Amino acid sequence: MATFQDIEGGGITTPLGFQAGAAACGIKRPGADKLDLMVLFTPHETTAAATFTSNRVKAAPVRVCQEHMQGNDIRAVIVNSGNANACTGAQGLTDAREMATLTANKFGLKSEQVFVCSTGVIGTPMPMERLRAGFETAAQLGDDPLPPTMAIMTSDTVAKYRAVDVTLGNGQAVKIGAMTKGAGMICPNMATMLCFITTDAAIHLDCLRELTKRAVKYTFNRITVEGDMSTNDTVLVIANGQAKNTPIESDTSEAAAFYEALYDIMLSLAKAMIRDAEKATRFIELTVRGASTEEDAHTIGKAVANSVLVKCMWNAGQPYWGRVMHAIGYAGVEVDETRISIDFNDVPAAREGIAAGTPVSTMRDETDSKEHRLVIDLGLGEASATVYTTDLNENFVEFNLLD
Amino acid sequence: MATFQDIEGGGITTPLGFQAGAAACGIKRPGADKLDLMVLFTPHETTAAATFTSNRVKAAPVRVCQEHMQGNDIRAVIVNSGNANACTGAQGLTDAREMATLTANKFGLKSEQVFVCSTGVIGTPMPMERLRAGFETAAQLGDDPLPPTMAIMTSDTVAKYRAVDVTLGNGQAVKIGAMTKGAGMICPNMATMLCFITTDAAIHLDCLRELTKRAVKYTFNRITVEGDMSTNDTVLVIANGQAKNTPIESDTSEAAAFYEALYDIMLSLAKAMIRDAEKATRFIELTVRGASTEEDAHTIGKAVANSVLVKCMWNAGQPYWGRVMHAIGYAGVEVDETRISIDFNDVPAAREGIAAGTPVSTMRDETDSKEHRLVIDLGLGEASATVYTTDLNENFVEFNLLD
Repeated sequence: MATFQDIEGGGITTPLGFQAGAAACGIKRPGADKLDLMVLFTPHETTAAATFTSNRVKAAPVRVCQEHMQGNDIRAVIVNSGNANACTGAQGLTDAREMATLTANKFGLKSEQVFVCSTGVIGTPMPMERLRAGFETAAQLGDDPLPPTMAIMTSDTVAKYRAVDVTLGNGQAVKIGAMTKGAGMICPNMATMLCFITTDAAIHLDCLRELTKRAVKYTFNRITVEGDMSTNDTVLVIANGQAKNTPIESDTSEAAAFYEALYDIMLSLAKAMIRDAEKATRFIELTVRGASTEEDAHTIGKAVANSVLVKCMWNAGQPYWGRVMHAIGYAGVEVDETRISIDFNDVPAAREGIAAGTPVSTMRDETDSKEHRLVIDLGLGEASATVYTTDLNENFVEFNLLD
Repeated sequence: MATFQDIEGGGITTPLGFQAGAAACGIKRPGADKLDLMVLFTPHETTAAATFTSNRVKAAPVRVCQEHMQGNDIRAVIVNSGNANACTGAQGLTDAREMATLTANKFGLKSEQVFVCSTGVIGTPMPMERLRAGFETAAQLGDDPLPPTMAIMTSDTVAKYRAVDVTLGNGQAVKIGAMTKGAGMICPNMATMLCFITTDAAIHLDCLRELTKRAVKYTFNRITVEGDMSTNDTVLVIANGQAKNTPIESDTSEAAAFYEALYDIMLSLAKAMIRDAEKATRFIELTVRGASTEEDAHTIGKAVANSVLVKCMWNAGQPYWGRVMHAIGYAGVEVDETRISIDFNDVPAAREGIAAGTPVSTMRDETDSKEHRLVIDLGLGEASATVYTTDLNENFVEFNLLD
């Protein structure tokens, strides 16, 4: 029995003690009536965990948040879309700090209690005048999770948000709310995925960090559109303790229940990003098993998922397993091609590295569908990893031409 | 002054003592009148050097050639297009060995003196009956380099071959002839680049291997269409000594003259492959300098060249340097973004990691051309590397859909 349940229409404002607001500042386009600034606030003491892009070129707000996470009593988040504030030098850092200060002054916080994110064009200075002008509107807080979710969207075509009620093992209950943006990791001029998760759970910092790190590893770090890692990727989880549950500690059944819900939320939002990937037409669940180590399995999964030739095969709905073999071979992991099996859903395509003898039409019945599983067995060990990805469509290239 | 000169219309049969033939066997398509088998032969003792794909999934002929290169008196080469003989298991090895034996029997050689290559579809058994039927025609040798060059083409739109006369430092002269195939490393169902080079130079084995390895490193290993490394890539250089020059030894001015010509031939053919890349519209010379090591420079060059977002930028002819920054950042090499400069030809795009202030229209004058240079300076050291690549066009994806 599931220990958590969806809350219809819920999002980041659903857990107790969180409110948010949004405004159209004209950052996306001057004068446009598109939401592009959002503010989230909780008046309560929090614990928070965050993960950031490992790209060596980091946006200014990422650097500021890495500083602020030292203090770890994050009570407000300010996010703009339309400008990534990346490759903007010293002025970018000044602007990101000003966004924190604006928010801190409004709610009587210290700057270090504010988390700042940006998503949009790289290399263009932040239009701070327009942001300042729209800030007061964004800071009018309410309980509707949709406007703030829309304010962080860029090339996304659907708002991606969710909330659940979690029954902990001890009978107590907490809520988790979330929103994310990103049409895959590839966004024209934008290149960002962001995810914000709120919870009213009381939870020890070590435990929250551990569960967040683990859940991110198996969800957001397992999706790829084509491997273009962004300068701004950020996942933040804030817990304000307003559920008044016994604080959750590591290695307890309560932590397990909380993790199960957190993992499920992250996985569903990560999959929603892939389904909303720019111009993609298919959703592929790619499992590599029989590997010596989980890292090997993940490395091969990423190589296959990012192969442009494999992506073209998916786009065409074809079962051309030879392309999968060639991508396995260049992943940089030692393999024995005579032990490799490949299946489309439950249909054998290759055995011992050569054709399994299944008629192409039978295989195509599996691959010519909107969603299917590709399973690679390396025949070397017990480790496995699953990644989620999508095809490459001719419209993608067209979509990514700049005006 | 150049120490070598082009020989009009020359190719692999131009050096003394080499002849070749070609046939249409119906391997590309049964009954089709397309050349798809070629045989090259020299009756003289040779020294030879070869480099092969580092893909862990290797085609059967690659494995056979790796064995045969132990003996190192290669006197014949047999190559088919239309079938890669990859992922074909034990039968594939048997078929590759039979191709060697057929050729050896015809010319009175040992099997180990024959080099075997295949390019085409992966995972489909070799149509040996059709190949056997066409072999005798292919083995009718002549001096025209064009038919054998055409017989190894797959999605190539132009035949790529060349020959030069090399004046060695000691006044003696030798010839080098070459042919290559490959429309980039990405070929639908094919996935192969092959290059065959003949020379009538007398050259010591150690010297030939050293010069070949070095030339391949800076030419064929520096091109990428989108990084899909094939199962069949092979470069072979055969020297038969018929120029009767004093055998060339390492670290002499003769070796330097020979290398200069060999490098120029390989570079011109490698560039010709990029210019003929499937549906590509632009040619980009991408130099990374100011790196701590040449390997770092090459790693960053490959990451930028293979970024789908950067390729879309090139396709559009746009100077969006922020995409270049983000790809530099995820290459896996330590960089300091505040030291990075980016130039399009000689026009500054970024300085110290932020916009250089050049108007977009000025930069676009450089990037909206069929060929341009992208220069990245990391500001860290003295090492550099240049890679050659191309854009990603919406027609590429369409072209790579299978029927």
